[in-house]
Amino acid sequence: MKYRIGVDMGGTAIKAGVIDENNRIISKISIPTDPSLSFEVIVKDLADGAKAVAQKSGFSIEDFPCMGVGMPGSLNPQTGLLVFSNNVGWKNVPFQKELEKHIPIPIYIGNDANCAVIGEAIAGAAKDRKNVVMLTLGTGVGGGIIIDRKLFCGADGMGVELGHMFLVLDGELCTCGIKGCVEAYASVTALIRQTRAMMELHPESTMHDYAKREGNITGRTSFDCAKLGDQAALNVVKQYTRYLAATIGSLVTIFRPEVILIGGGLSNEKDFLLGRLNECVGDYTFAADIIGIPPIIKAELGNDAGIIGAAYLDVM
Amino acid sequence: MKYRIGVDMGGTAIKAGVIDENNRIISKISIPTDPSLSFEVIVKDLADGAKAVAQKSGFSIEDFPCMGVGMPGSLNPQTGLLVFSNNVGWKNVPFQKELEKHIPIPIYIGNDANCAVIGEAIAGAAKDRKNVVMLTLGTGVGGGIIIDRKLFCGADGMGVELGHMFLVLDGELCTCGIKGCVEAYASVTALIRQTRAMMELHPESTMHDYAKREGNITGRTSFDCAKLGDQAALNVVKQYTRYLAATIGSLVTIFRPEVILIGGGLSNEKDFLLGRLNECVGDYTFAADIIGIPPIIKAELGNDAGIIGAAYLDVM
Repeated sequence: MKYRIGVDMGGTAIKAGVIDENNRIISKISIPTDPSLSFEVIVKDLADGAKAVAQKSGFSIEDFPCMGVGMPGSLNPQTGLLVFSNNVGWKNVPFQKELEKHIPIPIYIGNDANCAVIGEAIAGAAKDRKNVVMLTLGTGVGGGIIIDRKLFCGADGMGVELGHMFLVLDGELCTCGIKGCVEAYASVTALIRQTRAMMELHPESTMHDYAKREGNITGRTSFDCAKLGDQAALNVVKQYTRYLAATIGSLVTIFRPEVILIGGGLSNEKDFLLGRLNECVGDYTFAADIIGIPPIIKAELGNDAGIIGAAYLDVM
Repeated sequence: MKYRIGVDMGGTAIKAGVIDENNRIISKISIPTDPSLSFEVIVKDLADGAKAVAQKSGFSIEDFPCMGVGMPGSLNPQTGLLVFSNNVGWKNVPFQKELEKHIPIPIYIGNDANCAVIGEAIAGAAKDRKNVVMLTLGTGVGGGIIIDRKLFCGADGMGVELGHMFLVLDGELCTCGIKGCVEAYASVTALIRQTRAMMELHPESTMHDYAKREGNITGRTSFDCAKLGDQAALNVVKQYTRYLAATIGSLVTIFRPEVILIGGGLSNEKDFLLGRLNECVGDYTFAADIIGIPPIIKAELGNDAGIIGAAYLDVM
């Protein structure tokens, strides 16, 4: 069997896919989900989705040697427990055991940001790279690290929560309850907060009209208005870029990867985010002028990275 | 040959030692040095020291299969260049090549903090541990990481400068030129600065008399006066402990090691530093109450860790 099956469980949808030997997704399905449902129901939906996508590809789930599942949160690979999902609110949930009731093949579970970096390293923007750090910017900040072509997720498999290292000790309150985490500065949620604060200071900014037209303030508000010349919006973008550059600076100082990948919708901001990041990250990196800094590039696979990465959890 | 030879090159002394098969140092010498001398002179002194300690053990340098040298700074293991030594001020010095002129056996070079964690993992406080993070508190903050019994020093061998990840972006100016590094808050140099600032605010503090008696303000001033009940001194200790706890919190969140080692003179502060750290590090660590935190313990080997670790660079 040359095909693999992977599932990406997110906060609003379960996405399952089958990939061929060239790492192309040959079939894919998406099932809406709701974290407020009982976890047994969610797990059953996930299993049904996996079986359905297998059938859609002309197989049955038993035809695959194993299945991988990525999900948000800290997973204990030894016990199969979803130990903590900050955003979904689950604690010590026996995820793997429950899933085994429905799926008759070996199951591998992993953190969603880890699956994303595996996917990008196998089939995406970091395809020929041995050492990769990836940040996924969304509701939170997800981190994934490949060292010597292997996933690194901490000694006990529950580390690399890069969104929760400190950026500004005693600074903004993070969703995890600690003040000053990266996530409280560099997530899209944080960008929206920074945008709102700047709008309050600048009633003349075009961001007000823009947000009214769009219905709300989003991660795009400041970027789109900055491109049209709004000074307050540009200041939001500059400040946010600094926070992200400093985060990357810490990671380069520790890991010295060959490449930094940025995932999430904001990574489409080529000049206004990636261009600026590449220019200024050296200002936040130890001895950058002597040792050098790696390129910061956009992740390529979008949401598919999580499916592809999950499908390869068994070999990483 | 069951014996190994290692050299620890510091800012004020070159220490060389021969260790036996039980990792005990059987002979050791220390030669004073001065970073303002030309690097050729320092390298010659280092080579002479290595030859002398070999002889002192009843051997000649040619009897050893190889020699390891630890030194402060970022080393490029591919080129043998000492790329950058922040405290000594060297840049792109061909250290290994110069040393090969004097030493006829293979030479392995490594960062001094990396050598310290190797020494502790082989013969010290982390002897049976597979995954270790060590912080050495001194003029700067040195970092060393063992993952799965192997030294981890970044993809290109020049990483793990843990003293230069951010703790407080835009905060105190670090010696590296960037504002807000760990080293600017958690080094002994930073502690002395914090002590001095508190003394200026508190002319009634016993720290003034203590420092006068000792001749200057040191890393011990606040700790010793805090133990005698001085409130201002205790506040310095508490603040410093918080900075160190937050640094460790970031590292646990990323690496999830089995144990954290603290090296340097301050690690002797059992109750006032290590005890407090173990109590409060969970407040600065992502999901500590659910995932747990590793113990923070004192490194055991002191200065010998660097010699022993250097002697094992070839196998790490």
